[in-house]
Amino acid sequence: MTNEEENVVDPSHPRYESLMIRKKVADAGAKGMLADSAMIAHGRGEAFDYLLGEQTIPSAYEATKEAAARLARAQRPVLSLNGNAIALAGQDFLTIASQLDCPIEINIFYRTPERMGALLGHLKMLNTKLGLDVEILGGVPDARIPGLEGPRGACQSTGIFQSDTILVPLEDGDRCEALIAMGKEVIVIDLNPLSRSSRRGTVAIIDEVTRVTRNLIQMIPQATQPTEWNNHQALQSALNHITTSMANRFE
Amino acid sequence: MTNEEENVVDPSHPRYESLMIRKKVADAGAKGMLADSAMIAHGRGEAFDYLLGEQTIPSAYEATKEAAARLARAQRPVLSLNGNAIALAGQDFLTIASQLDCPIEINIFYRTPERMGALLGHLKMLNTKLGLDVEILGGVPDARIPGLEGPRGACQSTGIFQSDTILVPLEDGDRCEALIAMGKEVIVIDLNPLSRSSRRGTVAIIDEVTRVTRNLIQMIPQATQPTEWNNHQALQSALNHITTSMANRFE
Repeated sequence: MTNEEENVVDPSHPRYESLMIRKKVADAGAKGMLADSAMIAHGRGEAFDYLLGEQTIPSAYEATKEAAARLARAQRPVLSLNGNAIALAGQDFLTIASQLDCPIEINIFYRTPERMGALLGHLKMLNTKLGLDVEILGGVPDARIPGLEGPRGACQSTGIFQSDTILVPLEDGDRCEALIAMGKEVIVIDLNPLSRSSRRGTVAIIDEVTRVTRNLIQMIPQATQPTEWNNHQALQSALNHITTSMANRFE
Repeated sequence: MTNEEENVVDPSHPRYESLMIRKKVADAGAKGMLADSAMIAHGRGEAFDYLLGEQTIPSAYEATKEAAARLARAQRPVLSLNGNAIALAGQDFLTIASQLDCPIEINIFYRTPERMGALLGHLKMLNTKLGLDVEILGGVPDARIPGLEGPRGACQSTGIFQSDTILVPLEDGDRCEALIAMGKEVIVIDLNPLSRSSRRGTVAIIDEVTRVTRNLIQMIPQATQPTEWNNHQALQSALNHITTSMANRFE
């Protein structure tokens, strides 16, 4: 479906950043890294980011600091990445995994050998490019997330299964709930403050994934102690940010 | 990128309707009818529809009645359709064009001969299937919308160019503004009440395109006189509907 005209982004465009992010998703799709639904999911995210003003709002900044604290303190952290997360911020997630000395596990909703191979190959290439040696799991699942049927429940025992704290960018609601039910701390990155993942996560960061990873890379080396985090209060702050921008727009 | 698992929709799913609509976009993409960005645009729409509660809200219902009145009264109405509009509601738009005795003009943002051919072929097939004889324009542009450069400004003299009232579902903001500047009445269908198309249109219907076409088919035969329509007031109603649903969600 690709057309040249679409893939040229003018740097003077007011939404240049957003269009460059979109281009990363389109390119990853062309490489076979994504399911069809990945483009639609990206569009949904774009709409919420537009409503947030395409910026890290204060409650999201605080949630990211809390996430950094919890990941840095964890005994067995793991980063669970899907196709969109790898397409958008694969390099940054490798840096974060290296900072935390933890594995990355590729965990995709629509698992096919081709897509899994494309994602593994992409992360390994970036690992080499960055001179890192981050362990990449997910290719050989040997454990199951209880309550999830079929390939969606497949995971690796030394990764997601045994983790105590798990970072899940752009996660499906069912899987987020199943991970919470396993007793894990689940750090969610999501642009929709009303999604099940956002609501059920231990700490939900309502922000665009590349802004979050850039913030995490700064925050992890200076991580402080975790607090008593009130996730629902932070979500209501995000909703209030959106509703304030919608009040009396046409009056 | 297609995967079988993705294309099976369970009728008991709470969002069955939304998933079936999504499937139509994915299928049209596989047939070469859509640009890459079409899937992302659809996702953006899904997010706004989710915020509206996936329903026709009262202000959208009134806007649709107003649109029916203005289209029925017009001397030279035209339906300007892009790939997503044809994928989602091609059959309904043919019915509406037949009710209004007006042409459809295919007007796509990323024009390639292949995509144009696929869209023309699809509408012609539906025309035959429905036993209709709606004129389908757009294949041989011979006029220009002033102020739009390149293929985006191409149009047909007996269609968009000479029309007095134009229905533009899911239209790009630049083109909407250029059509307004030509002095036309522009009826917009859009899910984002803050988009430029919504704000600049004569009448913006903030609703999902297949719900709108079903309503228009009912309303056109009983169309009344147009009113003094206050577009911005209707848009603020849509925003207020969204913000009300976001207030005190987590308290």
